[in-house]
Amino acid sequence: MAKKLYILSSGAGGTKYMTTEALEALNECEAVVGYRNYVKELAELIGDKPVFMSGMTKEIARCQEAINYAKEGKTTCIISNGDVNVFGMATLVTELMDEQKLWDEIEVVSIAGVTSFLATASRIGAPISQDFAVISLSDKLTDIDLIDKRVRNCFDADMILGIYNPKSKKRILPYQNFLKALSEGEERIAIIASHVGRPKEKITVTTTTDLIAQDIEHPEVTMSTLIIVGNSQTRHTSNGLVLTPRGYLNKYEMSGELKE
Amino acid sequence: MAKKLYILSSGAGGTKYMTTEALEALNECEAVVGYRNYVKELAELIGDKPVFMSGMTKEIARCQEAINYAKEGKTTCIISNGDVNVFGMATLVTELMDEQKLWDEIEVVSIAGVTSFLATASRIGAPISQDFAVISLSDKLTDIDLIDKRVRNCFDADMILGIYNPKSKKRILPYQNFLKALSEGEERIAIIASHVGRPKEKITVTTTTDLIAQDIEHPEVTMSTLIIVGNSQTRHTSNGLVLTPRGYLNKYEMSGELKE
Repeated sequence: MAKKLYILSSGAGGTKYMTTEALEALNECEAVVGYRNYVKELAELIGDKPVFMSGMTKEIARCQEAINYAKEGKTTCIISNGDVNVFGMATLVTELMDEQKLWDEIEVVSIAGVTSFLATASRIGAPISQDFAVISLSDKLTDIDLIDKRVRNCFDADMILGIYNPKSKKRILPYQNFLKALSEGEERIAIIASHVGRPKEKITVTTTTDLIAQDIEHPEVTMSTLIIVGNSQTRHTSNGLVLTPRGYLNKYEMSGELKE
Repeated sequence: MAKKLYILSSGAGGTKYMTTEALEALNECEAVVGYRNYVKELAELIGDKPVFMSGMTKEIARCQEAINYAKEGKTTCIISNGDVNVFGMATLVTELMDEQKLWDEIEVVSIAGVTSFLATASRIGAPISQDFAVISLSDKLTDIDLIDKRVRNCFDADMILGIYNPKSKKRILPYQNFLKALSEGEERIAIIASHVGRPKEKITVTTTTDLIAQDIEHPEVTMSTLIIVGNSQTRHTSNGLVLTPRGYLNKYEMSGELKE
């Protein structure tokens, strides 16, 4: 099987999160497909390979285009920001490949990456070191009540939350539900992050009280923002970072023995 | 501030998941600290830098040793497998730094990576493309009833589950609780993964029915296994991969327009 399609995670932002495996695939491929802004970031690595770029909402066409390039015999990369499996391109490519019965014709290699939830965590201390949930508030494809239930169930179980796609100009109701769920619990530390790993990176440490008070007008919460909500043990460090201790130091001696 | 400590994610396994940022930090550092098996994998990259290795259950001592190297003026890396924030070393290092008031003395740089949940997903199709939760079943540091509540709340909200540290020889009760929670819902596709990205990699696609039937004797479920449980929409592809469709193809035309 000579035809090959890479579904390639480019990491949270820029090129510093790209893995060895992703760099090798990008180097090997003969055609590149991706969302305009993300492909442009990789211009230097892509060099003079042919590139197919498109804008938002063209996800299906983009995945099909990548499959078509591969069918023509070109080893192809479709670029997905963050990790291909976290609200990325892996699902659509896999679904189209399956529907079109192309598994015998094209070898698909999916390449994992650093999703922005993990990238943000590393930039701001150790905020997510216990059990966590990653939830998209976009109700384009998921029922709004199910999203609300997921947020509530996880918040109720004192899990750390990573919230993708909190709101857009037209889509504010799931975010309002999210704020309502937060308002029914105790205050938590919250982190608002955008453009992590890119020159415009902005990460703000705040609280759920602030999120609730600023409501849908919050100037930092947009479609491309990620919000992290800590659990009941999440706290500030003395230098302004955020820490969720796992509890080792309360329970264990330096040697690894249980404390008496 | 000349003293520097990297908390470095080495990715899920081997070196293919290492990021550009991680490789540069490893190259820059003058001392390396880490769990024996993970450090050995990076031997070629580490070269003749001094290395402090230790075994399991020495987490606190290992983090303190890394801090001590940095205090001595050596730019130091502490290696954490997967991602430093996903049950990794970031939390302990941050807690010790804070407790010992070292923020003005040592610059700490945390480097995100590919956690095994994402690495496994990429190896087996697109199984985790909707909202998900990552939960450790280890009750060494987390109350066993809280773990059970988290599993149940997330399963009840039809979330995809990533289960770390499912059981060890001595610790089987949280895994029994997990199986009981699964047995009260409908059957789901389950993935059992170990050594992802390493020569011994083994990934098995099975069902929750099989997990429940094999109970605590399941030969593939150990301390170092990761289990992924799909949601109600997770299905097999015709070539044996696992897919959780996001729903695009039901709702949108190829153009990105909503279907009538």
